[in-house]
This record gives sequence, C-alpha cells and structure tokens, in this order.
Amino acid sequence: MAKMTLTVLGSGSAYPSEKRFNTSHILSIDDKNFMIDCGEGAQIKLRQYKIKTHNLNHIFISHLHGDHCFGLIGLISTFAMLNRKSNLYIHAHADLEKILQPQIDYFCQQMPYQVVFNPINPRKNTVIFEDKTIQISTIPLKHSIPSCGFLFEEKTKNRHLIADKIDFYQIPVKQLHLIKRGADFITTDGELIPNSALTHEAEKPKRFAYCSDTIALSKNIPLLHDIDGLYHEATFAESEKDRAKETFHSTALQAAEIATKANAGKLIIGHYSARYGKVDKLVEEAKTVFNNTFAAEDGSVFEI
Amino acid sequence: MAKMTLTVLGSGSAYPSEKRFNTSHILSIDDKNFMIDCGEGAQIKLRQYKIKTHNLNHIFISHLHGDHCFGLIGLISTFAMLNRKSNLYIHAHADLEKILQPQIDYFCQQMPYQVVFNPINPRKNTVIFEDKTIQISTIPLKHSIPSCGFLFEEKTKNRHLIADKIDFYQIPVKQLHLIKRGADFITTDGELIPNSALTHEAEKPKRFAYCSDTIALSKNIPLLHDIDGLYHEATFAESEKDRAKETFHSTALQAAEIATKANAGKLIIGHYSARYGKVDKLVEEAKTVFNNTFAAEDGSVFEI
Repeated sequence: MAKMTLTVLGSGSAYPSEKRFNTSHILSIDDKNFMIDCGEGAQIKLRQYKIKTHNLNHIFISHLHGDHCFGLIGLISTFAMLNRKSNLYIHAHADLEKILQPQIDYFCQQMPYQVVFNPINPRKNTVIFEDKTIQISTIPLKHSIPSCGFLFEEKTKNRHLIADKIDFYQIPVKQLHLIKRGADFITTDGELIPNSALTHEAEKPKRFAYCSDTIALSKNIPLLHDIDGLYHEATFAESEKDRAKETFHSTALQAAEIATKANAGKLIIGHYSARYGKVDKLVEEAKTVFNNTFAAEDGSVFEI
Repeated sequence: MAKMTLTVLGSGSAYPSEKRFNTSHILSIDDKNFMIDCGEGAQIKLRQYKIKTHNLNHIFISHLHGDHCFGLIGLISTFAMLNRKSNLYIHAHADLEKILQPQIDYFCQQMPYQVVFNPINPRKNTVIFEDKTIQISTIPLKHSIPSCGFLFEEKTKNRHLIADKIDFYQIPVKQLHLIKRGADFITTDGELIPNSALTHEAEKPKRFAYCSDTIALSKNIPLLHDIDGLYHEATFAESEKDRAKETFHSTALQAAEIATKANAGKLIIGHYSARYGKVDKLVEEAKTVFNNTFAAEDGSVFEI
C-alpha cells in the first residue's frame, strides 16, 4: 500500500507571518513529491523541513491569488541555479504562464530545465495528470476568482494471488496477470474456479483531496465520497460566518460538515485568517460535527 | 543628531534558508524607514521584527537578481490588502517596472495606493532622493549585471547658537537663521563678531553606504571617504577569492580593505554564500585589516 503523507509548508492565508507562511503543501506518495500551492517562502520551508526536490516534478496551483503562487519564481530560479535538468510541470490557470514566463525569461537566463505549463479548467472535474499508479484531477471550487482543488487517487491495485491455490490448479504463468486483475480460471477439465478462490482482495487505493480556497460546496460530496484524507480550508471560525461568505471562504464547521457528508477518513483544516494565532477554537468547532479533525500548522506532517 | 540604525532582514545570498533569508535591510533614520533590497520573505521578516511600514515609503533595489527583489510583489500586495494610501517609491533599474507592473496589475486589482518606479542609472553617482534632512545617491558597482549601491547622507546641520552670546550682542531674531548657518555678525558699532564666538559646531552629518552585489572597487573610495557605516557584501572567504572574482563578488578581506581605505567608522559584512553556516572565519579575515567589522545576521540591528 502506498505511503501517502501531507507536509504543510504554510498554514496561513493572505498575510504571511513567521508562525504561518502562505499556503503551500507537499503531498508525498511513496517516492514522489507533489507540491500543492506555492506561497512566498515555500522554498525556504522545503529547505527547513529537508524535503527532497529531485522527485518534485509537478506543482498544482489552486488559483491565482498571490498567497498561493508568489513562491513560484523563487523556487524556479533556485532550481535553475542548482542546475536542475528534469522538466517541472505547473498545473494552473492559463493566466499563470502569461505572468510567470516573462519573469522566468528575465531572471533565469540559460535555464537548464524546462518549466511546462499545463493550463487547467477549474470549472469541471478533469484528469490533469496520471501515471501507472496515480491519477490527479481537478475539483471545481467556488471562490472570488476561478479556483479548483485537486483529487489525488491511487489507481486500483492488483489482487493478491494465493500461492498454494495457484500451485494446486497448476495455473500457467501467462494467465496470472489476468487473474490478478480479477479473472476466473477454467481448468483443463472445464471446471470454473472463481477468482475469489485464487486471490485475496487488493488494498483499497488511497485518495486525498485538497479544497482551497472555496466556500464549502456540497455539490462536490459525490467526488469526495469515502475520501481517506480531506484538506479543506477553514479560514474563519463560526463567529465570522458572514465574513467567510462575503470573501468566498469556509468556516471550520463548514469544512467539517463536508468531511462528514463525504464520509472522510480524516479532515485537515488550514489556511487560517491571520486573526487566529492559535486555532484551538476552529478545531473544537469542527470536532462538534467531525471528530477526526486535525489542524495544519507549518511543519505538520499527516499520514493519509 | 539623527538616530540611524540598520536592521538586517536577510543576510544570505542566492539560496535562502531558514537561518538566512535573501538580502533585505531596513535603514531607519529617525522616524523614516528605508528598505534596501527586498528578497523573498522580506515582508515576513518585517512582521517578525515588528518593523513599522507606515513610514516605509522608499525601496532601493541594487540590481535585478531574484535574491534582491523577489519579495517585492508580496510586500506590494500585502500593502494593498492593508489599504495603504501613500505612494511607495521603488528606486531600481528601469527593467523592474516592466517585470513588476504586470504582476501588480494582475494581482493587486483596485490598488488603494500607487507604486512609483524611479528608474536609476547604476553607472554614475547620482542623487535619487532628497528631503529636508537626507540625501540618497547611487554608488556605481561592478557585478555580472548592472548593479549599484546606495549612499545615505544626512544633510549638513545648523550650528548651535550660544544663548548668552546671542543675548549679549543683542542679535535680532531675523538674523539668527544666517548665524546658525555660519554667518558672522556685525554690531551696530561696526564691530565684526566671528561666527565661532556665537555658535558651537553642528554634529557631523551621518553617512551610511550599502555596497552589494559587487567586486570590491577602489574607485569608490573617494565617495565613501570617512563614511560612518559601510555595509559591504562579503559573499566569500579568502580561500574562495577566485570564485569571488569569477562571480563578481567580494571576499570579507576585500570588503575590509575598502573599509580601511575609506577610513570607515564601522564595517558590516553580509550576503554570505550558502556554503557558510557560521561566518566567524569571514569576520576573522576581515578583522585582520579592519578591526571594527561586524557580521550581519538575520535580525541584527546596527547603530550607525
């Protein structure tokens, strides 16, 4: 089963501080690192938390507010100075390329690697990346500007062969591939051996969703259903519910309601307004409806 | 006499780390704050060190390498969110406006204040700002791209009247203005009273110079002569002298030689290569030729 962890590089929202940098996260899936949002100073946190970047090839930007993307040019520039060779893919609203490419051209002359922009459509759940083991798609959100979350899903895994049954029925090696994927077996005598007699179930593929910045959206529940880990923004406490609505953000309680309806395994809240030094109150409010709630802090690491 | 202090927001060079942010400084002259360079995360340090920004109206950018200017867009954007009203003047190479204005237009819609770019000529010592009490001019430097330092000079102050002499000679109030500026006085009997009998000398105006990034340049010695405080980059130790030359940087010893030749009051070195965790060796090397050397660290405050 894949090891999936979320490291919080920045748990703050609009205003960065020493305690809370702007939004940025690393989702590690086995040996791959994916960056989600890249606020100012994200590269400093990568160094501080000793996170490897040779295996960081994809950055996902939820929306083009500065607190989610001002760290990109510094990171890109540092990678250039470090003589990075492999492509860096940035999945973001199409406007990002227009803003960032001129900066890259100016500040990173003689780029030793390529920044590849993948313009995404934030309005529709769309697969934006996949490889053999993982698929990443957008989650449409609702914010003051186009915004989307990201759904990280392990692909369905092969079933586990039961060795002594495979031996007993003398199943040819060339058929094992199909049996791992659920096929039954027919013996030379014409007897059908059901797959369930030959294999154990595969582990359930892990799923993680990132939803920020957004008002809490019930329409995404089907997409998020049975999610193992849900990061949902919780910019405000319930007392600031009106402010949350005005600014297209969520309260901690609203985030927890989404987690409950989605039957999530774990809820991680973050992207707190600078008015909250400690966020105990937000966690408490969330726990009234979804007990398995955790607070993102800069440097937190969560197992998904 | 003006109180002049330099606060180091970032003492690092190309690669930022938790211990050393990219280059940025605040020079405070009485109640005015001036920012010199603005590396990524400068706004975080301003918050951390509780530096007021209502009186920060001028930012001076030495050259357009990212480690000296990537913090600008975050700072400008935060000022906009905080509903700043007063103009922010950025004194920098003309290219900065071309790079930064599109970002401001995109990220800071409905700007409540104006960012005014003052394009500077880094090749010639030129006054780029003055008010009643201070004058700021460029110092031509030599780096891999156009680069200049900045010379902050208090204006000449009025001499101090000696009250009992003023009374004794019954000098009319309307003449005091001239006498403060050094005029002699002629009594009604035609007797000349020399100014030195009527006034004490004014305090020597303070002067501070910032030289980064650059190779150590003797040609600037006349400009820097008798400087009270000199900040000079010292990216490398003497063992990396060749590397310093190649990359158009200075060693700590070279910085100290400039301080000695300029008869500086105090030398502050900084902008260290990331290879140096502690910089004791650099300070030691500098002190062999200029004893009054101090090492910039993030958060250091130096009286000039």
